[in-house]
Amino acid sequence: MATINCDMGEGFGLYQMGDDAGLMPLIGVANIACGFHGSDPNHMRATVRLAKEHGVKVGAHPSLPDLQGFGRREMKIPRDELANCIIYQVGALKGFLEAEAMTLNHIKPHGVLYGMASRDPEAAHAVCDAADVFGVPLMGLAGTLHEEVYIERGHDFVPEFFADLDYSDDGMIIIMRHHGTKDPKKCAEAARRAVIDGRLRTVGGLDLPVRATTVCIHSDSPNAVAVAEAVRAALESHLDP
Amino acid sequence: MATINCDMGEGFGLYQMGDDAGLMPLIGVANIACGFHGSDPNHMRATVRLAKEHGVKVGAHPSLPDLQGFGRREMKIPRDELANCIIYQVGALKGFLEAEAMTLNHIKPHGVLYGMASRDPEAAHAVCDAADVFGVPLMGLAGTLHEEVYIERGHDFVPEFFADLDYSDDGMIIIMRHHGTKDPKKCAEAARRAVIDGRLRTVGGLDLPVRATTVCIHSDSPNAVAVAEAVRAALESHLDP
Amino acid sequence: MATINCDMGEGFGLYQMGDDAGLMPLIGVANIACGFHGSDPNHMRATVRLAKEHGVKVGAHPSLPDLQGFGRREMKIPRDELANCIIYQVGALKGFLEAEAMTLNHIKPHGVLYGMASRDPEAAHAVCDAADVFGVPLMGLAGTLHEEVYIERGHDFVPEFFADLDYSDDGMIIIMRHHGTKDPKKCAEAARRAVIDGRLRTVGGLDLPVRATTVCIHSDSPNAVAVAEAVRAALESHLDP
Amino acid sequence: MATINCDMGEGFGLYQMGDDAGLMPLIGVANIACGFHGSDPNHMRATVRLAKEHGVKVGAHPSLPDLQGFGRREMKIPRDELANCIIYQVGALKGFLEAEAMTLNHIKPHGVLYGMASRDPEAAHAVCDAADVFGVPLMGLAGTLHEEVYIERGHDFVPEFFADLDYSDDGMIIIMRHHGTKDPKKCAEAARRAVIDGRLRTVGGLDLPVRATTVCIHSDSPNAVAVAEAVRAALESHLDP
Repeated sequence: MATINCDMGEGFGLYQMGDDAGLMPLIGVANIACGFHGSDPNHMRATVRLAKEHGVKVGAHPSLPDLQGFGRREMKIPRDELANCIIYQVGALKGFLEAEAMTLNHIKPHGVLYGMASRDPEAAHAVCDAADVFGVPLMGLAGTLHEEVYIERGHDFVPEFFADLDYSDDGMIIIMRHHGTKDPKKCAEAARRAVIDGRLRTVGGLDLPVRATTVCIHSDSPNAVAVAEAVRAALESHLDP
Repeated sequence: MATINCDMGEGFGLYQMGDDAGLMPLIGVANIACGFHGSDPNHMRATVRLAKEHGVKVGAHPSLPDLQGFGRREMKIPRDELANCIIYQVGALKGFLEAEAMTLNHIKPHGVLYGMASRDPEAAHAVCDAADVFGVPLMGLAGTLHEEVYIERGHDFVPEFFADLDYSDDGMIIIMRHHGTKDPKKCAEAARRAVIDGRLRTVGGLDLPVRATTVCIHSDSPNAVAVAEAVRAALESHLDP
Repeated sequence: MATINCDMGEGFGLYQMGDDAGLMPLIGVANIACGFHGSDPNHMRATVRLAKEHGVKVGAHPSLPDLQGFGRREMKIPRDELANCIIYQVGALKGFLEAEAMTLNHIKPHGVLYGMASRDPEAAHAVCDAADVFGVPLMGLAGTLHEEVYIERGHDFVPEFFADLDYSDDGMIIIMRHHGTKDPKKCAEAARRAVIDGRLRTVGGLDLPVRATTVCIHSDSPNAVAVAEAVRAALESHLDP
Repeated sequence: MATINCDMGEGFGLYQMGDDAGLMPLIGVANIACGFHGSDPNHMRATVRLAKEHGVKVGAHPSLPDLQGFGRREMKIPRDELANCIIYQVGALKGFLEAEAMTLNHIKPHGVLYGMASRDPEAAHAVCDAADVFGVPLMGLAGTLHEEVYIERGHDFVPEFFADLDYSDDGMIIIMRHHGTKDPKKCAEAARRAVIDGRLRTVGGLDLPVRATTVCIHSDSPNAVAVAEAVRAALESHLDP
């Protein structure tokens, strides 16, 4: 069985980011921003409520402390200080979950922190140090260093596939600073192949094995709702009820 | 029975504020800053640990979102947005308490938010809206509007006396932007009279009734440790064990 | 003669605000955000360059220090500290103007700071204290306290009319936290009447005298470009070349 | 001839950093923080005034945008965005200099940005891109990449020696997150040897050549004033009048 997950609540003040209201009915799991790369107390409260209305599970989407860079600029932060940043953010989100009588479902690092954890042991361990406090599963990329570290540290690991990103020939996702319009059909077929067939196609045309029980769709693509609808249709029979 | 409480963990990054290590052995309850007027994830973690070592109970000390102004500049924020600010901060602190297997003891608004809650029903209700989530007592000034609102909303109210502040003839504290050196003997005698005799002396020489079960000492007075020692000695037999 | 002015460069990081590229060809004067309510060094640089390409004059649009509240939440800040906030922001913008060999055209306070200056002498004087440094005209509302203070302090005053805002029966603008879609024809006619006839119509149906040599259009209205085109057409023969 | 320079104005809000008032009479050149790693509009205003009172020249001390990390955590920022960060900060400082009828003397990057510029061409060029706007000299370490880039780009280069830092055997300074108490005599002798003899002693006991026309003293050492007095005495006859 699989889920569709989506990064949500990434607006800030008057600034909007992503069609959260359009996407929420289509997904099973929301990764909610915690104020360090996007979001603020008002957006967090509203997004948690929106998730609740649609029966969507909520995880924390903590980031490096870099609002101006949307958490996409690498920073050198010692392991203990990075863990503290994550605990702060996850704790803050839990406050809003408690306000709505919901529980924390998982933690998924945001942006460059996600990438750092997938290749730098110090970052992966910092994520675990924080996750130890909350005892929830961690999302990540199967086959990378963070899968290894998360499992070794005793955390449940939820492998994910990015339906709207390209993969390089070494099986890694190609990160974009801005997410453009995507072809919903292609995203849906990629998601189906990843989840059901366990295969992905790289930009160089290679066909590689992949493990994924959740499919991520970026809410800041201009046509994210169309992508989500197509992916949902393609995975329908395999989605968690 | 009474306690001594102290605002703690108000440093930020490399900046230090208050002699937390010197004060922690002398107090029973710490109000820990949550990052909106002072503190950051590292200071919060360290301060929670320091409190644990000394068996000090920890409450949240949330503020208006104004780091540059140390939470001492009034801002007009609607009730729901103010409540969200408080939930965010208290939730973040709870993350660090969970990390140390501690529980949240109370909430005490910081700086001008404390004053706003004591005179503006919207602010007092915003504090209650947030406190509803966490179910802990609220500290405040007996006889002011926030006592009335907090109790009406079903929250336990802990009345406090400020040993190191002057009181005006209407029984209100006189807020200072900077806290200067205080006479420990005078502070101790004022604390003793407030807690044991239920009386306070105003700047105008009036002798007024006061209710207080906790005495606050500001950690950013230059001689806060001496003040705390004197207050502790004066209250010794009345302090919670 | 008259100008059309527009608040510009109010995006932040990945967040967009307003169709600056669509509006710039239609206006004569841009008020560029300086990072305290919106904008950041990258948006400021890009917006200054865009203005230069279109021969648009650039003024500073400084704000209270409140990015999360977009400078629309009143804060109590002493006069000298408020002046320092404004000097900092205007200086920063001048850096980008120097980079493009442009000069500072004027200062127009943003959001609630604009309103504060129009009714609170301390705020109006703080604006003047900062403007003294830069020696440029100040924009504002004719007939309000800030016109009086600005002129008394020796600053050139540029009276403006808000084509896309309603006016209350006392001749004051009605501030909105979000700007909705406006009827371009009505805005254009209101602008024409204000600039050429010197009259405005209030929400209560009163017809009042008004002085204005510049017309403001808010870039964050969804149809700001259509409004600007209509206003420009209505004022054509009266616009500065 | 030589100068003594000092990083100044690094407090923030209520937080103090360094004994600026004690140091200002002892130095010739102040590098004033611009709000991205320390300082704020009030501290900048006060520090510029203090420099003026003492006839001290003022340069800008811009940083990576990281207040919580005091500009000492490396961040990956593209060259054009880094240049924009620097232009913003230097422009802001120039606002306060204009307010006091002073001129900008130089630019000296702060903390890790200084180190990045000394080894990464992108960072060194970003500093130059910003310095092009202001046309002032740049301070740095003789013999490192940034000297080469600054000079190649046509900027005056002011080589500096750090009287209160250790040097590794490759002639590089050893950066500390916190600056401890230093032996004033040793600092003074090191400064004298660097400026007059053109030699420095490394932690490994090597005696290396060094070029320096300015000596830096860190204001956040606990005994910075004593260090500055000793260095000043040692260099007296070589100091700019």
